[in-house]
Amino acid sequence: MLRYFTAGESHGPCLTTIIDGVPAGFPIDVQKINHDLWRRQQGYGRGGRMLIEKDEVQIRSGIRWGETLGSPVALGIENRDWKNWTKKMSAASEDRDESVAVTKPRPGHADLTGILKYHHADIRNILERASARDTVSRTAVGSFCKQLLAPFGIKVLGYIRSLGGIEAKTEGLTHEEIFERADGSPVRVADKEAEEKMIALIDDCKEKGDTLGGIFEVVALGLPPGLGSHSQWDHKLDGRLARAIMSVQAIKGVEVGLGFEMARRRGSQVHDEIFFDPQRMVSEGKPMILSTGFYRRSNNSGGTEGGMSNGAPLVVRAAMKPLSTLMSPLQSVDLRSKQPADASVERSDVCSAPAAAVVGEAVVAFEVAVVFLEKFGGDSLHEIRRNFEGYLEQIRNF
Amino acid sequence: MLRYFTAGESHGPCLTTIIDGVPAGFPIDVQKINHDLWRRQQGYGRGGRMLIEKDEVQIRSGIRWGETLGSPVALGIENRDWKNWTKKMSAASEDRDESVAVTKPRPGHADLTGILKYHHADIRNILERASARDTVSRTAVGSFCKQLLAPFGIKVLGYIRSLGGIEAKTEGLTHEEIFERADGSPVRVADKEAEEKMIALIDDCKEKGDTLGGIFEVVALGLPPGLGSHSQWDHKLDGRLARAIMSVQAIKGVEVGLGFEMARRRGSQVHDEIFFDPQRMVSEGKPMILSTGFYRRSNNSGGTEGGMSNGAPLVVRAAMKPLSTLMSPLQSVDLRSKQPADASVERSDVCSAPAAAVVGEAVVAFEVAVVFLEKFGGDSLHEIRRNFEGYLEQIRNF
Amino acid sequence: MLRYFTAGESHGPCLTTIIDGVPAGFPIDVQKINHDLWRRQQGYGRGGRMLIEKDEVQIRSGIRWGETLGSPVALGIENRDWKNWTKKMSAASEDRDESVAVTKPRPGHADLTGILKYHHADIRNILERASARDTVSRTAVGSFCKQLLAPFGIKVLGYIRSLGGIEAKTEGLTHEEIFERADGSPVRVADKEAEEKMIALIDDCKEKGDTLGGIFEVVALGLPPGLGSHSQWDHKLDGRLARAIMSVQAIKGVEVGLGFEMARRRGSQVHDEIFFDPQRMVSEGKPMILSTGFYRRSNNSGGTEGGMSNGAPLVVRAAMKPLSTLMSPLQSVDLRSKQPADASVERSDVCSAPAAAVVGEAVVAFEVAVVFLEKFGGDSLHEIRRNFEGYLEQIRNF
Amino acid sequence: MLRYFTAGESHGPCLTTIIDGVPAGFPIDVQKINHDLWRRQQGYGRGGRMLIEKDEVQIRSGIRWGETLGSPVALGIENRDWKNWTKKMSAASEDRDESVAVTKPRPGHADLTGILKYHHADIRNILERASARDTVSRTAVGSFCKQLLAPFGIKVLGYIRSLGGIEAKTEGLTHEEIFERADGSPVRVADKEAEEKMIALIDDCKEKGDTLGGIFEVVALGLPPGLGSHSQWDHKLDGRLARAIMSVQAIKGVEVGLGFEMARRRGSQVHDEIFFDPQRMVSEGKPMILSTGFYRRSNNSGGTEGGMSNGAPLVVRAAMKPLSTLMSPLQSVDLRSKQPADASVERSDVCSAPAAAVVGEAVVAFEVAVVFLEKFGGDSLHEIRRNFEGYLEQIRNF
Repeated sequence: MLRYFTAGESHGPCLTTIIDGVPAGFPIDVQKINHDLWRRQQGYGRGGRMLIEKDEVQIRSGIRWGETLGSPVALGIENRDWKNWTKKMSAASEDRDESVAVTKPRPGHADLTGILKYHHADIRNILERASARDTVSRTAVGSFCKQLLAPFGIKVLGYIRSLGGIEAKTEGLTHEEIFERADGSPVRVADKEAEEKMIALIDDCKEKGDTLGGIFEVVALGLPPGLGSHSQWDHKLDGRLARAIMSVQAIKGVEVGLGFEMARRRGSQVHDEIFFDPQRMVSEGKPMILSTGFYRRSNNSGGTEGGMSNGAPLVVRAAMKPLSTLMSPLQSVDLRSKQPADASVERSDVCSAPAAAVVGEAVVAFEVAVVFLEKFGGDSLHEIRRNFEGYLEQIRNF
Repeated sequence: MLRYFTAGESHGPCLTTIIDGVPAGFPIDVQKINHDLWRRQQGYGRGGRMLIEKDEVQIRSGIRWGETLGSPVALGIENRDWKNWTKKMSAASEDRDESVAVTKPRPGHADLTGILKYHHADIRNILERASARDTVSRTAVGSFCKQLLAPFGIKVLGYIRSLGGIEAKTEGLTHEEIFERADGSPVRVADKEAEEKMIALIDDCKEKGDTLGGIFEVVALGLPPGLGSHSQWDHKLDGRLARAIMSVQAIKGVEVGLGFEMARRRGSQVHDEIFFDPQRMVSEGKPMILSTGFYRRSNNSGGTEGGMSNGAPLVVRAAMKPLSTLMSPLQSVDLRSKQPADASVERSDVCSAPAAAVVGEAVVAFEVAVVFLEKFGGDSLHEIRRNFEGYLEQIRNF
Repeated sequence: MLRYFTAGESHGPCLTTIIDGVPAGFPIDVQKINHDLWRRQQGYGRGGRMLIEKDEVQIRSGIRWGETLGSPVALGIENRDWKNWTKKMSAASEDRDESVAVTKPRPGHADLTGILKYHHADIRNILERASARDTVSRTAVGSFCKQLLAPFGIKVLGYIRSLGGIEAKTEGLTHEEIFERADGSPVRVADKEAEEKMIALIDDCKEKGDTLGGIFEVVALGLPPGLGSHSQWDHKLDGRLARAIMSVQAIKGVEVGLGFEMARRRGSQVHDEIFFDPQRMVSEGKPMILSTGFYRRSNNSGGTEGGMSNGAPLVVRAAMKPLSTLMSPLQSVDLRSKQPADASVERSDVCSAPAAAVVGEAVVAFEVAVVFLEKFGGDSLHEIRRNFEGYLEQIRNF
Repeated sequence: MLRYFTAGESHGPCLTTIIDGVPAGFPIDVQKINHDLWRRQQGYGRGGRMLIEKDEVQIRSGIRWGETLGSPVALGIENRDWKNWTKKMSAASEDRDESVAVTKPRPGHADLTGILKYHHADIRNILERASARDTVSRTAVGSFCKQLLAPFGIKVLGYIRSLGGIEAKTEGLTHEEIFERADGSPVRVADKEAEEKMIALIDDCKEKGDTLGGIFEVVALGLPPGLGSHSQWDHKLDGRLARAIMSVQAIKGVEVGLGFEMARRRGSQVHDEIFFDPQRMVSEGKPMILSTGFYRRSNNSGGTEGGMSNGAPLVVRAAMKPLSTLMSPLQSVDLRSKQPADASVERSDVCSAPAAAVVGEAVVAFEVAVVFLEKFGGDSLHEIRRNFEGYLEQIRNF
C-alpha cells in the first residue's frame, strides 16, 4: 500500500519525505517533479520567501537509472534559507537562545493551540512545522505519483475557480483547456478578465497588509471505473480525497462535483442519467480507452458514485482561507506578559491560492495512486499494466 | 487507538459493528444508543422502510453490568425486514435464483460502477451494502462514542441548516438552543418558518416522485484545545472529520467554520483575534471549565487551527445530495439487453437530510473520541479523567 | 487490504468477527468453516467446556447464495454456555453483583496485569476476553481465508511436532502425509508411537492437576514466489507470521524453517542452493504449476528469503506453554486481603496444543491471504485469477 | 502513534528515516545515537565495509536545541561508500549500464525471489534494499526511542547468548551485569571462556569462506505492568515484538522468556507464582519504583502475560542464521544463461550476530516506546511524566 510521511521544519536544513509501497519499473523524470515544485512557487501575490527558495528535489533512494526499484523513495528538498537560521533552528542544545522566542500567537494559525498542547514556551517550535512550507513535500509526493499514473493515461489538473470572491468564467471550455490557460496565468486562472480583477485585488490587499484566499478545482482524467470501494467507510475514494485536501494548510472546505449546490436542487436535476452506445466501446483515442459503452451526458456527481470512481472526470473543489499572517497584524496577546500585542509577523504572502491548486493536484494524485494500486495490485509496471488492461477488457465485455 | 468496522447488508439478517480500542469503566446506557437510532429514523419525508424497522442495538460484547470492559464492543442491530428476504439474501448457495436480479442501475448510486468493479451480474450484490442503511451502524458507533465523551463534558449536536435550498434562520441562538429546537422538529430545523416551507417542499417532491437533499451542521462543544495535530498530514482533526463525513452516503461537500465563505473574504475579516482575561480562568460552570484565560470574540475558524481543536466550538457543515432513488425513475439502461430502461426502484425516502444530521453527529463523535483518547491515553475512565484534568490544570497555568 | 477484528467474551452471548477487504465471487462453504471449528475443539486432554460448546458459525453478512459479495463478512458464533452466565455476564447495570468477583489471579494469565492496567476489581473483567476462547474466532477467520486461497491451489496444514517434550518422528513423510496422519490423531500427531506416549503423559498430568504445552508446525503449500516484501520492515511475510502466531494465547516462541537450529550451523550447511531444470517448467500437476525452472534440493529457509515467499513450502513452528489454569492451583494472592491464596480455577484443559495447531493454520492462512491479495489486487475471483495467472506466466518466462 | 519508515539502498547516497508521532520536550543526545551506530559496527568477524563506513546520524528535522519538537524526526546517515558507486547507483537514466548487472542469485537472500516479484533483470535492484545495511536505520530509530524511554527509567539491553552453537554461561549474573560484560566483548558475550571459543570459530570460518549465526537476547528493564493489551490480537506486546525482531534481516526465530523450552515442561514448573509483600511497595531505588507489592520469584514468562508487560524484565531471544553471502560461494544459476554458476559475492562479514544484538535492542526499544506512549498518551515529556506517575500511584494503591 502506498504510504508517505513528510518531515521538516520551514527553516530547518531540509524537507524530507519517504514514499513507501512504490512498485518497480516506473520511469521517473526528476525534472517533472521540479517543474511542479516550480509551479507551486509561482503566483502573483507570493512574498519574499519565494525569491530565496528554488525548490529542487534530491532523490535519496528508491530510483536507479531513471526507474523505480520497488523500494521506498526518499526525497530531500533543501531549504536555501537555512543558512540564515543555523543557530535559531539548530538541533544542538548548545545553540539554545530563549531570547529569540516568538511569543505573540497569530490568529488562524496553530500557534496558540500548539504551544498549549505541546507545552512549549516558544511559538517557533510549532510554527516551523505547521507552516505551509510542508506543502513542498506534499507537492513532490504528488508529482511523483502523477508519474506512477501517467502510463495509464491518468492526468491530474489543478486551477483556480475563484480568488477573493472573484469567480472565473470558463463556460464551454474542457477541463484540459481550462488547465492549459490557467497554467500560464499568474493567478492560475483560465479567465483573462477575472485574472485582471484578481491581480488588482491582490495589489489592493498588499497595500493594506491584508490577505486573500480562494477556491481551486482539481480534476483527474482517465480514471477507470471502480477505484475506491463502497464496502467500508474508510475505503471510499471521496472520503480519502476529502481528508487529503482538508489536511492541506488553510483549507476549510471540500466538495465533489456539484458539491454544496447539489443540496439545493432536486434529485431529478442532479443525478447523471445512464445511457449506452456500442459505438463508445470502440477505442478512438485516449479518452475513449476506458469506455464500456455506458456513458453519461452530465457529470454532476464529479466522477464518484458510492465512494468509487465511475469513469467520469473526478472533480473536486476546495476553499482556502486568506493567509493567517497579516502584514497589518491582527490583535493578539503576548504569552509572557499576557498583555495585548500585535500578532507576530513571519514572512508571508498576500495570497497563495494559485499555489494551493498545485498542492491540490498533488494530494489528489497521491490518493488516486493509492486506490489505483490497491485495485490492480502488482509489483512492477509490467505486471500492473497487464492487470490494468485485463480489467479494461473485462469491463468492456461486461 | 479507537477503530471500528461495520458490516451488514440492507436486507440481510442484521447489521454488525465492532469497536476496538475502547477503554474500561465507562458507563454505557443502551437506551441512549437506541434513542439516537430512533432519532435517525425520524424526519418528515422518510419512506416505508422506516415503518418496518425499529432499530435497537444488542450488546454482544465489551460491556458488563453497564460498564465498558476495555475489550472490543460488538453491536448487533436486527433488520426486521429480513424475514421478507430470507431467500433473496440467503447465504446458502441452494437459494440462488438469478431471476430476481436487479439489472437497471440507478444514476447517483454505486450500482453501475459496483458491478463492473466486482464482476457481478446482479446489482443487488452491490446496492445492499452501498445502501445508507449502513448509517444505522455508524450512528450506533457514534452514539456509543458520545458516551465516552460525556464524562468530560463534551457534547455533539447536529441539525439542519437548509433543505432543498430553504435556509434556516437562527440568528441570536446559541448552538445548544438551535439544537434543542431542531431536535423537536420533524425536519430537524430550529426555524419554524423554514420548517413549514421545507415540509411543503417535501410534499411537493413526494407528489412528483422527486427527492431532496440539504445541508446539516454538527457542533461539538467542550473540546479542550489540542486534539489532533499539525505535525503530519494524516493527524489533522479537520482532515479526519472531512473523511468521516464525506464517506457518509450522499454527502458531496464538507466545510469547517465559515468554510467556502472564507475563500471570499479578506484575512482581516475572518481570523479570530486573540484576547486574554484572567477572569476567564476562573471556572464558572461548564463552558468555562476549559478556559485558559485566552479567548476569542468570533469563531470563524469553526474550532480548528493548524489541524487541532482550539477550544472553541467545533463547527462543521455537510451537503447532502438529493436521494438517488426516485419514484419517478431516471433514465438508465438494462444491463442484459443494453436497451434504455427506467432505473430500478428500491423502497426509499423523499428526503433524509434530517436523519443525515444525526449520522453526522455520530461520525463526528467518533473522530473526536479518537483524538481525545490519543491525547489522553489511559485504559480506564479513572485514568483518563486524571490525565485529562492534569492537562487542564497544566494549560490553565500556562 | 484484508483486515479483521474479533470481539466477544468467553461466557458472553456470542463471539463476533468482521473480516473487511474481502473480494467478490469466492465460493464459501460454511461447513468447511464449521469443520475447522470442530477440529479446534478436538484433542485428547480437552476439558469440560468442549462438551458444552459445539461451535457453529453464522454468516451475518458478506455472503449471498454461497459466494462472497465483496462486502465485509461478519461471523457470529454462539456461546452455548452463555445460558448459564446471563446474569454474571450481563450487559445491564442492574445485574451487577460484586459478590461473584474473581480475586485470585492465576500465574501465567493476563489476570493480575489486566486489572492493574484497566483499573478493575474483578478479574473476570479481564479473563473473559483474555481467554483462549477468542481463538474460535481466529479459527473461523483463518478457515474462511483458506477458502480464499483454495482456488489458487494453496493449502495450509497444521500438526503437532512435540508435546510435553515428546517429539514426533516423521522422517520420509511429505508435509501432506504428515498432515493426513495427524488429522486423524487425538493429539494431532503423525507418529503413532509418540501419540501413545503423549496420551499417557496427558493422563499423568490430568491425575496430578497439571498441564502441558507443545510445539506445532504449520505448512503452507502452493505459495507463488514473491508474497510479502523486503522493502520495508513491516511488509515482511515472516514478520507478519511471527506477529500472528505469537499473538495466539499461550504461544512463547516462533521459528521459520530450521529456526533456532540455524543459529548453530554454518552458512554452507543451511542455505538452500539454487538449481535450474527446464523440465521443471513444464506443468505436470499441481506442485509443478508454480515452477519457474529454478528449484532447491532443501528447504531450510522454510519458504521465505528476504521476507518474501520463495515458492518452497512455508514452514513455521510455534511453542505453546503449558496452560496457565491448573487444577492443582499455583500460589497466588487474594487481591482484597492481600493474603496468600490458591489461584482461582476456571474450567480448563490439561493440554490444548493439538487445538493450537488448528489455530496456527488459521492465523497463517490469514496472513498468506493478506499478502496474496496485496500482490494480485483485484476485486473478484475472476479478476484475481487473471492477475495471478498472468504473473505465473510472467515468471515462467523470466 | 509512534511510526517509522526507513529508506535507502546499501550503496546509495544515504539512509533516510522518518519517525512520526514523537512527543515534545524530550532531550536527545545525538552522540548516544552515534554510539549505538558504532556498537552496531563492532564485532569480531565483521568485514571490509565496516572499515569504510563510520555511521553518523544527521538530524534533519524534529529536534531543536537538543529537544524534540513534537514534529516528525528525520534522520539521515551518509553511506561513505557511495562515492565509489555514484554511477552504478545513480538515479539518473543516463547512467544506465546493464553490463554491471548482478545475475547469480545468492541462496538465502532475497535475490532470486526479488527479481521475479519485481520483474527486474539485475539482482542489484533487489539486494541493495534487502541488505542488512537497513539495520543501521533501524538502530538509529531504536536508539532514539531509548532516549524517549530513559526519563521513565526504562533500559533496553542486548547481548549474545550463543554463537555458532557455542553457548555463553551467565549463571548468577543479573541482566545488567551480563550486559556490561558483553558490551566490552568483541563478540558481545559476557562469558570469557565462550568468547575465546567463538573467536576461534570465527577465525576457522573465515579461513574456509564460511559464515556463522547466533542467538541474542534483548532485555528491557523498568517497564510498568500494563503495556500492550490482551484485547485484540494486534495489540499484544509479544506479537509486536515478534514481528519487529523477525523482520530483522537473517532472523529465523523469536522466543519470549523460557520460549521453546516452555513447551517441554509442565505447567507447575513454568508459571511464575504470585506473592505479595507490602515492604516492596516502598520505593528503595530504581528497580523498586514500579512495585505494587505483588512480586514473583521467577520470570519464566519473560515479562509478558496475556500480551501485556507484567512488570518483570522483558526477555526475548532471537535466532540469526549464518550470513547468506559466503566467500566460498554456494551453488547457484546464472539468470541469463540458466547455467550453473557460483553465487555472486558481495562484500560481507563472517558473522554479524553481535551486531544483530544491537539491532535487536533497537527494534525492541521502538516497540516498547509505541506501547508506552499509547498507554500514557500526552504530547510532551511534562505531560507524559505526569500521566505515568499518576498511573504508578494508582497501581501502588490498588
